[in-house]
Amino acid sequence: MLNKTMLNLGSNRSVIRELFEYGKKQIELCGAENVYDYSLGNPSVPAPENVNINIKKLVDSKTSISLHGYTSAVGDNAVRTAIADDLNRRFGTDYTMSNLYMTCGAAASLVATIRALVTEAADEIIAIAPFFPEYRPFVEANGGKFSFVSADTENFQVNFDELESKISARTQGIIVNSPNNPSGTVYNEDTIKRIADILNRKSKEYNKPIYIICDEPYRELVYDDVIVPFVPNFYDNTIVCYSYSKSLSLPGERIGYALIPSKCTDATDLYNAIAGAARICGYVCAPSLMQYVVGACASEKPDISAYKRNRDLLYNSLTEMGYECAYPAGAFYLFIKAPNGNAGEFSEIAKKYNLLLVPGDSFECPTYLRAAYCVDYEMIKRSLPAFEKAILEIKKCSDY
Amino acid sequence: MLNKTMLNLGSNRSVIRELFEYGKKQIELCGAENVYDYSLGNPSVPAPENVNINIKKLVDSKTSISLHGYTSAVGDNAVRTAIADDLNRRFGTDYTMSNLYMTCGAAASLVATIRALVTEAADEIIAIAPFFPEYRPFVEANGGKFSFVSADTENFQVNFDELESKISARTQGIIVNSPNNPSGTVYNEDTIKRIADILNRKSKEYNKPIYIICDEPYRELVYDDVIVPFVPNFYDNTIVCYSYSKSLSLPGERIGYALIPSKCTDATDLYNAIAGAARICGYVCAPSLMQYVVGACASEKPDISAYKRNRDLLYNSLTEMGYECAYPAGAFYLFIKAPNGNAGEFSEIAKKYNLLLVPGDSFECPTYLRAAYCVDYEMIKRSLPAFEKAILEIKKCSDY
Repeated sequence: MLNKTMLNLGSNRSVIRELFEYGKKQIELCGAENVYDYSLGNPSVPAPENVNINIKKLVDSKTSISLHGYTSAVGDNAVRTAIADDLNRRFGTDYTMSNLYMTCGAAASLVATIRALVTEAADEIIAIAPFFPEYRPFVEANGGKFSFVSADTENFQVNFDELESKISARTQGIIVNSPNNPSGTVYNEDTIKRIADILNRKSKEYNKPIYIICDEPYRELVYDDVIVPFVPNFYDNTIVCYSYSKSLSLPGERIGYALIPSKCTDATDLYNAIAGAARICGYVCAPSLMQYVVGACASEKPDISAYKRNRDLLYNSLTEMGYECAYPAGAFYLFIKAPNGNAGEFSEIAKKYNLLLVPGDSFECPTYLRAAYCVDYEMIKRSLPAFEKAILEIKKCSDY
Repeated sequence: MLNKTMLNLGSNRSVIRELFEYGKKQIELCGAENVYDYSLGNPSVPAPENVNINIKKLVDSKTSISLHGYTSAVGDNAVRTAIADDLNRRFGTDYTMSNLYMTCGAAASLVATIRALVTEAADEIIAIAPFFPEYRPFVEANGGKFSFVSADTENFQVNFDELESKISARTQGIIVNSPNNPSGTVYNEDTIKRIADILNRKSKEYNKPIYIICDEPYRELVYDDVIVPFVPNFYDNTIVCYSYSKSLSLPGERIGYALIPSKCTDATDLYNAIAGAARICGYVCAPSLMQYVVGACASEKPDISAYKRNRDLLYNSLTEMGYECAYPAGAFYLFIKAPNGNAGEFSEIAKKYNLLLVPGDSFECPTYLRAAYCVDYEMIKRSLPAFEKAILEIKKCSDY
């Protein structure tokens, strides 16, 4: 007598969670020093100092009622203005608070956006593999049809022809996630322009807007001089779903926003539909103290030097051993080609050496494995012999 | 091309919000001293001192990563244990952390519970008038059928015969909200027992569990020696949706829980279905810092002396003027009978005196108006002449 979809979603942990739980058991058996857990994308860098400084400052300076009271459902005006100003400075845009809807994180922004766009069961949302596995239930369990474009395992950009062929009259939106989880790659300007070209053409063909839903929790996490193109500057019908989970290392606090630029078709209606969806999801408002914190820290940049150091060590060591990896220009994931061609099997081999890598099946890329390197640098160093043994095991097999 | 339901829900503010916005404009025109805004149920009592003390303590003592990092989706173990222990001490129960699912407030708990219980469009959730207007969209926009039992305007308990007649083979749950918003009344033990009797009988008749969904944000807000019966102790199939919004004055922080007692039919499946619903609503986890805060403040009691003082002044003054009111034993609402028998019209009359009262139509009780007295005591004093003038206007009319 219970909803079967909800029951299944609540009973079956994701592969990532299963692996993480397995790791906790192995740590009990073998000791924390001897387990190399690359399963979870949980930031390992503390929040910028200004976050905690501002929490204390807010507690001391604001009245309890204004600090902990309801904000309006769309979010505090001053907070939204601070975020709009920061975006305008960085991307040459002209947003105001009216373009921003504060949410309890990118997942909430995505769900509200999907529910705003899905009008009936035939309406499609398309993702581009490899992609965050929750996209599928977010769409399917909220009334829509989910489909995806298979992974471009050459460059981890986009299979453009396939994208074009997958778009139909029922396509309402395309989820774009760059820097990408799980590949760590950044879609370059050419990629964004080609996606925009396709969508402009298809929007015209079907005489309807097809929105880009930009899932951007990793926007600030890029290394060296790589630039993440700001998608709304390339395609008008772009909705940005942002989170401070990774950029300010606040994943537990559930704070982010949806950005609905005025250039979007039916921008006001779109904003209101997202607000309506947020309302019946029971969000009420984004957590108030954290709204004020991110407002005060709108221009704060994350210190990603630790992630870069991790990336360099892991990427360089693994490629030296003979692993093939996508070049991780951003986020904190290394996407590793299974040396035996089968990620599920290789994940099991790696587990023998207490090396926990997520097989790419759930990201719809079953020849790759994801290593989340938001971990302790020393763990990476300790894990290298395990990577060595695992690939040697494959090499030996293929010698026969 | 947008979802019409979401668009309507996001475009049309609730009557309460409309009135609040009207009040803000009137304040600009007439000055804050001359507007008597009873529209919003926003706590006017600060959070207990221990809340802010614990926020600072947590910031100083926990690492940034453990304080702001993801908790598991169900919530932090120690927090859930602290809450279970407090409930056990107060209500003689034997809950453990496994009975609790932390959420971003009672609205989130309600939505997740409704989505867990609604299996198809014919499935019904029943509320008891007068009720919080959001119940309807929470049910209807999440796939279910909403119906309600009309108000018992004699005692503001329950029309039991009507409840019994409304329950069908498709009834999945009954929302019980006591202390009640908007009536301020508390369902007494006899009421809870009679509801339980009816549900036990109907569950047997239809050979299926019918759950009580207890919406309990006001549980701790009762005056004098009134006791709020703890519903799970009277009816096994009770799910409690709790929020710290009112009890700890933290409405903006979005923190609460769903309690799924082990005595519930299919308790584990029910818990998992609620978890699955929370997952596809995009909650991820309840805000982490606030989880730790409510864990540390689990036994904290609100200081309701200010609300009691407000209640006494407002209730006594109004009844003396000739208003009929439901006796407000809890929450911070006074439910006032429209002296002219029509709440919508009387709300307009009151507005002429800058007295903002929510007509009961949206609570499905159109002969009453709600006054949220979680306001400044001085505002109540200043507002009394306006109440006097409004009722005099009616008395004069009926003299003709």
